[in-house]
Amino acid sequence: MRRRHYPDAKQLDNISRGTEMKKLINRPENVISDSLAGVAAAHSDIVRIHTEPRFIYRADAPVKGCTALVSGGGSGHEPMHTGFVGKGMLHAACPGEIFTSPTPDQMLEAARRVNSGEGVLFIVKNYSGDAMNFEMAVELAQAEGVPVSTVLIDDDVAVRDSIYTQGRRGVGTTVLAEKICGGASEKGYDLKSLTELGLRVNKNGRSMGVAFSSCTVPARGEPTFDLGPDEIEIGIGIHGEPGRERIGLKTAEEITRILTLSIIEDPAYTRTHRLWGAGAWVEEEMTDTPFQRGDRVIAFVNSMGGTPLSELYIVYKTLEEICRDKGLVIVRNLIGPYITSLEMQGCSITLLKMDDELLELWDAPVHTPSLRWGM
Amino acid sequence: MRRRHYPDAKQLDNISRGTEMKKLINRPENVISDSLAGVAAAHSDIVRIHTEPRFIYRADAPVKGCTALVSGGGSGHEPMHTGFVGKGMLHAACPGEIFTSPTPDQMLEAARRVNSGEGVLFIVKNYSGDAMNFEMAVELAQAEGVPVSTVLIDDDVAVRDSIYTQGRRGVGTTVLAEKICGGASEKGYDLKSLTELGLRVNKNGRSMGVAFSSCTVPARGEPTFDLGPDEIEIGIGIHGEPGRERIGLKTAEEITRILTLSIIEDPAYTRTHRLWGAGAWVEEEMTDTPFQRGDRVIAFVNSMGGTPLSELYIVYKTLEEICRDKGLVIVRNLIGPYITSLEMQGCSITLLKMDDELLELWDAPVHTPSLRWGM
Repeated sequence: MRRRHYPDAKQLDNISRGTEMKKLINRPENVISDSLAGVAAAHSDIVRIHTEPRFIYRADAPVKGCTALVSGGGSGHEPMHTGFVGKGMLHAACPGEIFTSPTPDQMLEAARRVNSGEGVLFIVKNYSGDAMNFEMAVELAQAEGVPVSTVLIDDDVAVRDSIYTQGRRGVGTTVLAEKICGGASEKGYDLKSLTELGLRVNKNGRSMGVAFSSCTVPARGEPTFDLGPDEIEIGIGIHGEPGRERIGLKTAEEITRILTLSIIEDPAYTRTHRLWGAGAWVEEEMTDTPFQRGDRVIAFVNSMGGTPLSELYIVYKTLEEICRDKGLVIVRNLIGPYITSLEMQGCSITLLKMDDELLELWDAPVHTPSLRWGM
Repeated sequence: MRRRHYPDAKQLDNISRGTEMKKLINRPENVISDSLAGVAAAHSDIVRIHTEPRFIYRADAPVKGCTALVSGGGSGHEPMHTGFVGKGMLHAACPGEIFTSPTPDQMLEAARRVNSGEGVLFIVKNYSGDAMNFEMAVELAQAEGVPVSTVLIDDDVAVRDSIYTQGRRGVGTTVLAEKICGGASEKGYDLKSLTELGLRVNKNGRSMGVAFSSCTVPARGEPTFDLGPDEIEIGIGIHGEPGRERIGLKTAEEITRILTLSIIEDPAYTRTHRLWGAGAWVEEEMTDTPFQRGDRVIAFVNSMGGTPLSELYIVYKTLEEICRDKGLVIVRNLIGPYITSLEMQGCSITLLKMDDELLELWDAPVHTPSLRWGM
């Protein structure tokens, strides 16, 4: 497939646009504070909001005996991450402006607030700004004696290297990693074993998405990009970053086949992650390989925001057929809008290779505003 | 506010349209069967699909000792109703074509399949076709000795009488009624007490919605209606039926205020429901009255499909403020896409007056594809 590189983000700005902005908001500059206030009002039994710097945290944090799990990133992907704070998942989340990285002071302050003494694991999606700011937060926290480590999620097989990030982008596997690591935190995993677990989840997970429409960032007031009436973008990023190619509209079966085979068959991918160890950053190579016959997987079909649930199930039907055909055993699934791009129409597929430990942690009880079972 | 009446549905057809159809589907005529096949594949631990006639039912039905709860209606509102079949909620759901009533044979066959001997309660939204076909199914089922009764939901304060229905339309309260009655079925309520419970839920619930965009029925290929770039439709129906008025775009605060005050202050409304009793239809008057200071309520903010979760929380923030100001105590909430209109942008608000019994039933465990807690 054709790969496109954009020399700089401004180029995106210059694409002509056609639609107006019609959103259920008050003022564009208050979208995040209003929305977070709503979350806090609705779920005061689960979460609290901290302002200046802004983060959302478990009402019962710090949780004694538990390694704290903190994530964050640009807003606009709700419920991720703010909807995943609660028992069995995140201890805190740091929302940036829409599609914009949060700042190190948010992460540092969140880490201080939820650290029970067992340390803090940051789950970070691989975008340049997020990665850089979370690294800075790690150094600041370590400097004041809070043990912190990081798991960088880079699971999007669509694009390797772009203006937004070095290597692969981080997408759907993030949601699954937050649930699985959240379950492990609850069970008392220490910082080292929680970090290793998170790295394993990332290594086992692969995703790819498709866009049927753009989305509109409120502060900007215009769609992030344009798609023709019969065009779709295969491999879209969750901020509307270019994917692999634009093609004419295809059936759900054809699209699901493109995404699923891209995920299953993507060649082995090796990247170097910077991990904090023994008082300094160390580099570690990590390789993921194509899925194999016999692999047990979670199949995650995600709405980009504007695509109805009924269409996700149409995708799931074909995904299940392909997995069966390829000898992959779907042991769990997740279907719905969990990592979105505002009101973008489209979907993404994530497959995550499971083992008994991951499965037990996935099934563990969870109670957050947007993911709940077992309690 | 201005009320509009449309003399016949054809008039809607003649509104000029601007957008093309871009959906994640295979063939328009297979949307429902493909989607249901996906639900069955994804949730084989919970549900089974019956074809010819089409319905979805609990894998463990009939459930011994439980009055069966069956709903249905046009498709396009997912997850309602197919996503609500499972332990603690519906025993079966009968999906019609998109925005089209299911047929009596679907309802009859579903009733036969899930009746454990304790009888069957139909939960029906008040649209002419649904009401008529479910009435026919009641008569057919009774004729063959299956005890059946019906609860008609008519909670939409936006419109009284339209081309689609006599009296008010049935919307968001349906979701809450299915959860509450599902909990009661699980606890062993008999058909009579389950029916009375459902009628009470309907009497206690009121809703109203707003549309920011239309939706496109796949078989039609064009938007159901047009809205100008700065227009919204207050009081929209879940099939795109006209609401109270079209107005210019307003802030989330202003829109939430219009919807919430319409719900709280709508004058007493009396309607006559046809109930099956002692071998014949009997008519019963039912009146709901404005909400009062001190009322305990579930606050339900629902996405019409294409509106992101973050915007629902912006609405919730204001809803919570208004309720506090009016002396209503929000004891539970539900926020997300639960009764949708395909990819329509917009939301609806439902307030349901609670008492201890309703609250206990709401909190009872539920495990369906789209609503789950406590197990």
